Amino acid sequence: MRFIVADWGTTRFRGYLIENETILDQVSSDEGVSALQKGEHRGVFLKHCRRWLDAEPNAPVLLVGMVGSREGWVEAPYASCPAGPAEIAEALVAVDLENGRKGYIIPGLFCEPAPGAADVIRGEETLVLGAGVADGLICSAGTHPKWILMRGGRIERFATYMTGEMYALLREHSMIGRPATEPSDQKGFDMGLDAAQRNSGDNGVGLLHLLFGARAAVVSGRMGSNLLAPYLSGLLTGDEINGALAQFGRPSSVVILADQARADLYVHALARHGIKAEVKDPKQALLAGLARIVRQHTAV
Amino acid sequence: MRFIVADWGTTRFRGYLIENETILDQVSSDEGVSALQKGEHRGVFLKHCRRWLDAEPNAPVLLVGMVGSREGWVEAPYASCPAGPAEIAEALVAVDLENGRKGYIIPGLFCEPAPGAADVIRGEETLVLGAGVADGLICSAGTHPKWILMRGGRIERFATYMTGEMYALLREHSMIGRPATEPSDQKGFDMGLDAAQRNSGDNGVGLLHLLFGARAAVVSGRMGSNLLAPYLSGLLTGDEINGALAQFGRPSSVVILADQARADLYVHALARHGIKAEVKDPKQALLAGLARIVRQHTAV
Repeated sequence: MRFIVADWGTTRFRGYLIENETILDQVSSDEGVSALQKGEHRGVFLKHCRRWLDAEPNAPVLLVGMVGSREGWVEAPYASCPAGPAEIAEALVAVDLENGRKGYIIPGLFCEPAPGAADVIRGEETLVLGAGVADGLICSAGTHPKWILMRGGRIERFATYMTGEMYALLREHSMIGRPATEPSDQKGFDMGLDAAQRNSGDNGVGLLHLLFGARAAVVSGRMGSNLLAPYLSGLLTGDEINGALAQFGRPSSVVILADQARADLYVHALARHGIKAEVKDPKQALLAGLARIVRQHTAV
Repeated sequence: MRFIVADWGTTRFRGYLIENETILDQVSSDEGVSALQKGEHRGVFLKHCRRWLDAEPNAPVLLVGMVGSREGWVEAPYASCPAGPAEIAEALVAVDLENGRKGYIIPGLFCEPAPGAADVIRGEETLVLGAGVADGLICSAGTHPKWILMRGGRIERFATYMTGEMYALLREHSMIGRPATEPSDQKGFDMGLDAAQRNSGDNGVGLLHLLFGARAAVVSGRMGSNLLAPYLSGLLTGDEINGALAQFGRPSSVVILADQARADLYVHALARHGIKAEVKDPKQALLAGLARIVRQHTAV
């Protein structure tokens, strides 16, 4: 089965012509959602993908990512957890392409991790459904890593951490990360994981204290400035993992969806907890997840 | 006894002519340490304070704050905890003013909250010694709040939190704080304190998760954007307090050194833990602390 996809995030537009789980053709540009005004999305989509629409008049069209956010083409309301391909296919939001043909925006998901608390996902739900995990824990590691609990082939619930954005904030805008020097020494990552342990259990000293401690260690000469950046990465990653394990229990293994360099950090950090991590390619997972949703959609 | 003081921080220079704990004359400018190059400090000091040096030829001269940091006039190495007025007076670092007259930089303090971990203080040690607390817990609340444990009139140990800087990072540079609207609704502060409780005890979900949850609550329509800024303030303050109480036990009362508006937030948050907070004026504490150190210095 052939279908057409726009993986449309905050900063990038990526178009694909797909057969089953294989990319036949692709295009990309920097016309991400944040670069566009209301009303411009259809034109951008047609500019890049009209040739596929013409060549494949019966191919379904899916749109995934921030294209369904308030700042996107149209807002696709969050569906609720638990959700699998069937629930997501039912919640697809149609947009007009041209000549009566429709594209379908994959909605994000909402969950309520505690009474009154909120978490949302938009884009990763599709990757996760293609990760080949019916029951178990998945970590989709990016700017805002998501920990997703799968039950019976559906997304049961999830928790987002602002780890990657926090690292960038600390490096680019904060007194804490400013003294960091390059080339960095990766030994700092383990030192950061050690520090994160001081914020676990029932005597946690507080992440805001440990972050200041990184600066204190440098200005007092206890830590070389070339250790600082990996130290902050280790501290934030370790604190994320401690929190995720507190929320989702301690499984014997976790599936990591990330590029290899980032995944390696999680594999290393999880090994300290005695947890095995299996790394899967996020692009392949996206294709598999899209195929599951499109099959469900065309079967409806 | 008359003495001359420069309270010289990152962004401000403040000069005082003091008699005991009373300010007789004062001057201030934006010539903070971060605005100056090496070699410029003496000139700035003399420009503002020479008239007092001439009028009071026997008055001791103290300098306190970031003027003793690596970026300051000269670096005054951190003294070690425990430290009281006697230890600090012994560790003063002399600088040449003019005609053989010396000024004395009050050193910061270093402590090791755990093996290999580090914390530092530079400036607040002086306030704390003037807070009138021989034994007990003090919170000096500013951009980097300090929790200081006093024992027998000396600073036993302390812990710094980057709470205020983190709030500014989130508001000014982050996806998390960007949707906040004014005028804000202070009810959000209590909601943030509630959220912080989800990161206490041995099942802490992680501050990085709760911070993302603030954004999730807004984009999913669960929280008004006018609640967001006070919510972030409550979440960060609550997490700081949870960490500080984990480190220093749960005293029946705490002394807060802060301006009234900021102190009110701590009083409110601590009341939820059944802890009474006594607010003291940081300026009066500074003057009293300086007087203790200068008396010790002139007695040597």
